[in-house]
Amino acid sequence: MSRSKVQVLVNGYGVIGKRVADAVLRQPDMKLVGIADVVADWRIKLAAAKGFPIYASIPEKEDEMRKKGLKVEGTMVDLLKNGLVDVVVDCAPAKIGARNKEVYEKYGVKAIFQGGEKHEVAGVSFVAQRNYHEALGKQYVRVVSCNTTAICRVVGALHEKIGVKKARVVVFRRAVDVWESSRTGIMNTAVPELQVPSHHGPDARTVIKDLDIVTMAAKGSHNLYHLHMAMVEVKEKVTREDILEILDKEPRVIFVSGEDGIDGLNTIFELSRDLGRPRGDLYEIPVWRDGVSVSPDGTEIYMIWATPNESNVIPENIDAIRAITELEKDAKASISKTDEYLGVIKRVY
Amino acid sequence: MSRSKVQVLVNGYGVIGKRVADAVLRQPDMKLVGIADVVADWRIKLAAAKGFPIYASIPEKEDEMRKKGLKVEGTMVDLLKNGLVDVVVDCAPAKIGARNKEVYEKYGVKAIFQGGEKHEVAGVSFVAQRNYHEALGKQYVRVVSCNTTAICRVVGALHEKIGVKKARVVVFRRAVDVWESSRTGIMNTAVPELQVPSHHGPDARTVIKDLDIVTMAAKGSHNLYHLHMAMVEVKEKVTREDILEILDKEPRVIFVSGEDGIDGLNTIFELSRDLGRPRGDLYEIPVWRDGVSVSPDGTEIYMIWATPNESNVIPENIDAIRAITELEKDAKASISKTDEYLGVIKRVY
Repeated sequence: MSRSKVQVLVNGYGVIGKRVADAVLRQPDMKLVGIADVVADWRIKLAAAKGFPIYASIPEKEDEMRKKGLKVEGTMVDLLKNGLVDVVVDCAPAKIGARNKEVYEKYGVKAIFQGGEKHEVAGVSFVAQRNYHEALGKQYVRVVSCNTTAICRVVGALHEKIGVKKARVVVFRRAVDVWESSRTGIMNTAVPELQVPSHHGPDARTVIKDLDIVTMAAKGSHNLYHLHMAMVEVKEKVTREDILEILDKEPRVIFVSGEDGIDGLNTIFELSRDLGRPRGDLYEIPVWRDGVSVSPDGTEIYMIWATPNESNVIPENIDAIRAITELEKDAKASISKTDEYLGVIKRVY
Repeated sequence: MSRSKVQVLVNGYGVIGKRVADAVLRQPDMKLVGIADVVADWRIKLAAAKGFPIYASIPEKEDEMRKKGLKVEGTMVDLLKNGLVDVVVDCAPAKIGARNKEVYEKYGVKAIFQGGEKHEVAGVSFVAQRNYHEALGKQYVRVVSCNTTAICRVVGALHEKIGVKKARVVVFRRAVDVWESSRTGIMNTAVPELQVPSHHGPDARTVIKDLDIVTMAAKGSHNLYHLHMAMVEVKEKVTREDILEILDKEPRVIFVSGEDGIDGLNTIFELSRDLGRPRGDLYEIPVWRDGVSVSPDGTEIYMIWATPNESNVIPENIDAIRAITELEKDAKASISKTDEYLGVIKRVY
């Protein structure tokens, strides 16, 4: 990169996009060129009011967006064509990123995709703590979904330190996103995914290739955070203290305590709001310390954690930008910068 | 038993008690002497209006219940003392059964306890399909909880037919009972049990002694049915068809189908109401046929089922009555009678 700061465009200003935009603003080695989208609803209007330069993702949408009263600076294509963008963080809805790729390809611009896209769209699936090096200098990288990221952080830490023989994880998902009222939510029920194993296990293997993992999933009647229940066989005998120590040292994993009254997903959300995070976001994976347990023979570990589905992949997107632009070649250095600038913590108190 | 019909008293007319009372009425070899309770709220008043003879569980409560306008026939002690009861089905709240046992003991009356009591209270924990013979002629038997009963039916069937090496089950529980508004429910969240493994695994072993099982549990934001997600390693290689055949032959286990639109706990409840069951009860364990899956190497089985927490133990209570009174010495014969009289089915359609 010849410029002093990496020029970043966020394409798609939804749940992930708006958080990535804010996070990029906090990185001294990055510059947010603007955000691109295809609509001009309240979200984009608020982004414009906040001072973000707005672009049309698709040239044909430019006029329509302007007609709705939005100040549109131009089109994403103009930016890419004129070499004003080093990296596009594509946060378009699932499967749309794959289509957008044609544009990035045409103008030779690097792009980061989200977990809604297939692994093949990018060729590299990414969780900073696990495979930062794989993304170095690549043209495309895919930041895996919130669930896969959480699994790669927690189970991946155990795999790296002691070796996982077999991981079995059940995911109790939120039904819809907080802002959604037009999409079908559920109430007073639980809805299982009948496709077993669920896609999360194979997805984790796009990052940690040798992980034996099977996942099952169900939707609950709530709209924030997924709940993960993990049963993990390990390759050597361990104690509960070993596991607590490994998780305590792992970046982006924190402990919460039922004994201190943190008993549900909602309590974690309230804690996160009290921490003063924008939007009540949590970048870390909160693991219940008093939910960590080891079988009497020391070979099986039980863990329970919440996956902050809106926000836990945000630091990964920032690291992915550093990796593909080679702004930083060392994983730990990038993670440490990102965590410092975003205020990611290791101890709640 | 010298009398032609076994004389049954239901002590505790709550979620389980009222269903047991109705179920006893449908057994030609049993007679419901009456129901006993300690309060005179809407539930007991409705029972009286239905024509059930009402007794005070505790002599001291008799007057209080009468003062509230209830017709009270006498006390449970009167009945037991005069030899008018062969079996008490104790459906009092958890831990109260253990206290009531002193009274049963004093008058030498057989009793059946529910899963809220410890195994030691009865000495025999019971699931008809698994260990009917153990309860034969015993003084006390404990019908295990809805969750444990479900696990013993489904996982137990596999254990009996192919041998289970290791069962790992995650339980997403309903938060409160349908009728409850004074007890704390939860909304828009999920609350894990931090005690891992949860009690369900050890409890299943009170029935199936050699079952290697670990369970984890969390409460969801719903008030009917538990959702179970099971990952079961078996001792020999199997196909999906093998598993479907085993479950298809197992009494009190039925298949439901996501392909037919049965996608959540709520849909199963609606189906059950459409089946015409009293209170929309389901005595069977509905297993999602399209959620049954086998690992590529044929040694691990994945299953998803709903546990109708209000009603799945009702047939077990009826069988337990036959077993401890030796009204029927053969498990299959008792199960078959109970299922016929209650209308338990093997095929939904």
